[in-house]
Amino acid sequence: MASEARRAVVLLSGGLDSATALAVARRDGFACRCLTIAYGQRHAAELAAAGRVARALGAAEHRQLHLDLRAFGGSALTADLPVPEGRSEAEMAAGIPVTYVPARNTIFLALALAYAEVIGSFDIFIGVNQLDYSGYPDCRREFVRAFEGLANLATKAGVEGGRFRVHAPLIDLTKPDIIRLGVSLGVDYGLTHSCYQPNPEGLACGRCDSCLLRRAGFEAAGVPDPTRYAG
Amino acid sequence: MASEARRAVVLLSGGLDSATALAVARRDGFACRCLTIAYGQRHAAELAAAGRVARALGAAEHRQLHLDLRAFGGSALTADLPVPEGRSEAEMAAGIPVTYVPARNTIFLALALAYAEVIGSFDIFIGVNQLDYSGYPDCRREFVRAFEGLANLATKAGVEGGRFRVHAPLIDLTKPDIIRLGVSLGVDYGLTHSCYQPNPEGLACGRCDSCLLRRAGFEAAGVPDPTRYAG
Repeated sequence: MASEARRAVVLLSGGLDSATALAVARRDGFACRCLTIAYGQRHAAELAAAGRVARALGAAEHRQLHLDLRAFGGSALTADLPVPEGRSEAEMAAGIPVTYVPARNTIFLALALAYAEVIGSFDIFIGVNQLDYSGYPDCRREFVRAFEGLANLATKAGVEGGRFRVHAPLIDLTKPDIIRLGVSLGVDYGLTHSCYQPNPEGLACGRCDSCLLRRAGFEAAGVPDPTRYAG
Repeated sequence: MASEARRAVVLLSGGLDSATALAVARRDGFACRCLTIAYGQRHAAELAAAGRVARALGAAEHRQLHLDLRAFGGSALTADLPVPEGRSEAEMAAGIPVTYVPARNTIFLALALAYAEVIGSFDIFIGVNQLDYSGYPDCRREFVRAFEGLANLATKAGVEGGRFRVHAPLIDLTKPDIIRLGVSLGVDYGLTHSCYQPNPEGLACGRCDSCLLRRAGFEAAGVPDPTRYAG
């Protein structure tokens, strides 16, 4: 091919979902510029995971940006609030949990949009999903569509006729669906990190919502869980 | 009054417009929490101005958040590109200038939204205006309305029935209108900073678009210009 592949900006947290979204973007032929936000998250272990995933999946670039959302707090991931443990699926489905970080995906997509516009990309990938998600409002299709509309109003590139697309390839997938898709695309989930409260060695707690959803996902997918648990 | 005034988050740059927006928010009875973003802007002198303005106008709080957009660049304010000088109004009106910072107001409103949600506020003030603006797409009414819609989809507070409002009280005002309004509300514009390329002492260049719009605004308003120019 003479011309360079189309560029995409991929929001990469280091978790299971965004790793799969990156693999989809690669499958679809994009040259992927990954963006990871160090936002003062409790589980900073995911930042190292993002670097491993970007390398393993052949990202063209990987940037980490610092933005300390502990300045605002308001979440168990950015303030000194306990992370819920051992909740049932029914309990998780009952409401938006304290691990919700106010406006996080709005902030992340805004930063991805800035990055995309600077490098002449119109394609942004985000690994949100609305089925097996944790009840977060900014993981829903209507949010993603609304942001896409905003992006085309907000930017020079949009006003000049370009069309930004926010790709959310996992939006309607369950966790086992996502894992099967990722495995089919060669994702090594042993490189990813999901736990909200890993121990100092980075081992997963096995009890937070994120661990429980991940573990149940591997079980339902019939895929061996590569996660190293602390307990 | 027994109950505390309603809280608003006010995006405060240290410039003329956002100082006026803060004065309007105060006039309307809000307890104002100002948010200033240190984004690696060339004219960091505006950060000190934001502090002065917040104090002078009785803000209940003033926070500065660090987010280095020089990581992306793509603007004369965040990269090593020359700031246009001595342009006529016709030249300024001809297109979006190189001082446009990709997705800046999307990022700033997203951060204001996070702050608002954490403190239980539903009111965000931003000093954008679409008439005497510099051609920036994210200073238009349709952008502001789109962000407001997004805010209500993106957040726990929005999903639970709250309604965020993005107030842009200057949206249809010209620069002289804004200055007259601010003067009527007691804004001391001598505290504000507009120049994109101040000298090391913080004096305005008098030649960048921001200086030219500001100077012409004072002239047209018939208000003495308190700005200290370098030349």
